[in-house]
Amino acid sequence: MGGDRAPEVPIAGALLALAELDPAHTVQLVGRSDEVTAELDAQLRAGTALPGGLRERISIVDAPEVIEMSEKPTAAIRSKPNSSMAVGLKLHASGTADAFVSAGNTGAQMAASVFLLKLHAGLTRPAIATTFPTQRNPVVVLDAGANVDCSAEELLQFARLGAVYAEDILGRANPAVGLLSIGEEPEKGNAAVKDAHKLLEASDLNFAGNVEGRDILAGGSARGPIDVFVCDGFVGNVVLKFYESVPGMIMSMMTKGGVPKDVLAKIFKGFDYSDYGGAPLLGVKGVSIISHGSSSPRAIKNAIGVALRAVERRMVDHIGRRLETSAVAPS
Amino acid sequence: MGGDRAPEVPIAGALLALAELDPAHTVQLVGRSDEVTAELDAQLRAGTALPGGLRERISIVDAPEVIEMSEKPTAAIRSKPNSSMAVGLKLHASGTADAFVSAGNTGAQMAASVFLLKLHAGLTRPAIATTFPTQRNPVVVLDAGANVDCSAEELLQFARLGAVYAEDILGRANPAVGLLSIGEEPEKGNAAVKDAHKLLEASDLNFAGNVEGRDILAGGSARGPIDVFVCDGFVGNVVLKFYESVPGMIMSMMTKGGVPKDVLAKIFKGFDYSDYGGAPLLGVKGVSIISHGSSSPRAIKNAIGVALRAVERRMVDHIGRRLETSAVAPS
Repeated sequence: MGGDRAPEVPIAGALLALAELDPAHTVQLVGRSDEVTAELDAQLRAGTALPGGLRERISIVDAPEVIEMSEKPTAAIRSKPNSSMAVGLKLHASGTADAFVSAGNTGAQMAASVFLLKLHAGLTRPAIATTFPTQRNPVVVLDAGANVDCSAEELLQFARLGAVYAEDILGRANPAVGLLSIGEEPEKGNAAVKDAHKLLEASDLNFAGNVEGRDILAGGSARGPIDVFVCDGFVGNVVLKFYESVPGMIMSMMTKGGVPKDVLAKIFKGFDYSDYGGAPLLGVKGVSIISHGSSSPRAIKNAIGVALRAVERRMVDHIGRRLETSAVAPS
Repeated sequence: MGGDRAPEVPIAGALLALAELDPAHTVQLVGRSDEVTAELDAQLRAGTALPGGLRERISIVDAPEVIEMSEKPTAAIRSKPNSSMAVGLKLHASGTADAFVSAGNTGAQMAASVFLLKLHAGLTRPAIATTFPTQRNPVVVLDAGANVDCSAEELLQFARLGAVYAEDILGRANPAVGLLSIGEEPEKGNAAVKDAHKLLEASDLNFAGNVEGRDILAGGSARGPIDVFVCDGFVGNVVLKFYESVPGMIMSMMTKGGVPKDVLAKIFKGFDYSDYGGAPLLGVKGVSIISHGSSSPRAIKNAIGVALRAVERRMVDHIGRRLETSAVAPS
């Protein structure tokens, strides 16, 4: 029931995913079962391009309550234990589902994920990892909004989480971690960043030093490619939203300037945010993928793809081991 | 002597400015006089397109020392009192020059401006105001890197400084001030931003509430246009550098995608960073314009234009009065 056009878009995305995935994979649609059933039946009837046998791979789990996009996260989770958000995450926590995907209220998904899936030992907060298309390869930027006023220790945790994500989901060996700052020099940055620089330098991560705002779209600096950009959730959220506003502006400028739409569509292929589908909430002991409220069916399909890859690569165990190793390693 | 290609580019920019401006205006070139004289003579000989009489409007002031781009600001200013940065700012402080423009070491320019021009009463730090082209009108974003770890009170000061700048230089009446945050709601943001929201709400400014990363390029939110975006210098610097990297990436994508260069050049007209030329250091009792180290002659010319407009509009007095009024006004 999450997102600006629910249950329509999540159902359409689930059908797209099932059509592409190995038939062994199934989807549980969590929501008001009458609404979900009616919408699913309608889409299956209309979806002549869909392969057969999809209905058998879908089960519907009733969740009569709905958390609105504007509700206060913690209060909503407490007062609505039968929301699709809470019920879906409980299915995952109990092992009935291997992963959870939602385009609903991000804050509620975060709060419920921490509450129901629990954090890995040693973590104080989860982080939202977003994938940015760049001029080189896509990069991970985190935290994208789960945490503001972060300590240096938290920035180090984000670096560990992001490195595992880059390895498992983006397939990078020994990912290069950059610390987002306002200059390359270690002494540049705010207090938390300056301290985080020292912690990262002393860590077992492949730390590439400070990076700057211009290095994100470049996918790295003159010193080499960067896989993971670490920042606090305030900076990450501002940059993410700024970034998301770029294609629309460019499209509008180019269209006004007479560049044909099909040429633009081809050029912007690979820069479509929906390619990356969802941003995982890292640090919880489970796979919880946060999709945009305005997600397209394709974005939901890709979010399910990210979830599946995280499960197959055992990303959550990998994060747990990585955090344990770092905790006992001499600093 | 400041910038990546000095004295060549600053001199070329000064000549462009003089060619356009009222003949009453003059330029003082501050630097190693032999180098500056030789370069100026060479450009005047080669510049057949330039109007006559420019040489008489230029004086050369010797400053034998040069602060390198990589030097530590405060140490450089202390150890090189005869640098073009220090000598030029002293000319301004003494009234021999009405304004100062440099493409040199930004940190050194800030330190020397505060030291030689002094801050307005009630300010703790100056702020760098940058002008971003947007889908509506250009907007002011500040602070763009002079301050990290800002207090709520400092964010309020930036709002006051930015509002005067938007009025005097961009010609906006009663400029709308937005506080950059991670959500529209007053309770969203980090600790300083949440407190700043309250201070701004209680101020005499035209405060439009919190704005988000996506509102910068849009020149405002759904609630209306924004003239001034207020943020700490860490966030502002990251966003500025991110922003500056967009045109290059888009140009390269579009060129690869077969869009002709002349079409692109036309579309990107108005989005050229050099249109805005320079970022004023606000809060000091003088006009100190910071230009990019990589400025083109056109950017230098436009920086001189910004300086002139600030002088003509008596921006510095205006800021002083605005700060005084706000200091005595009941909160």
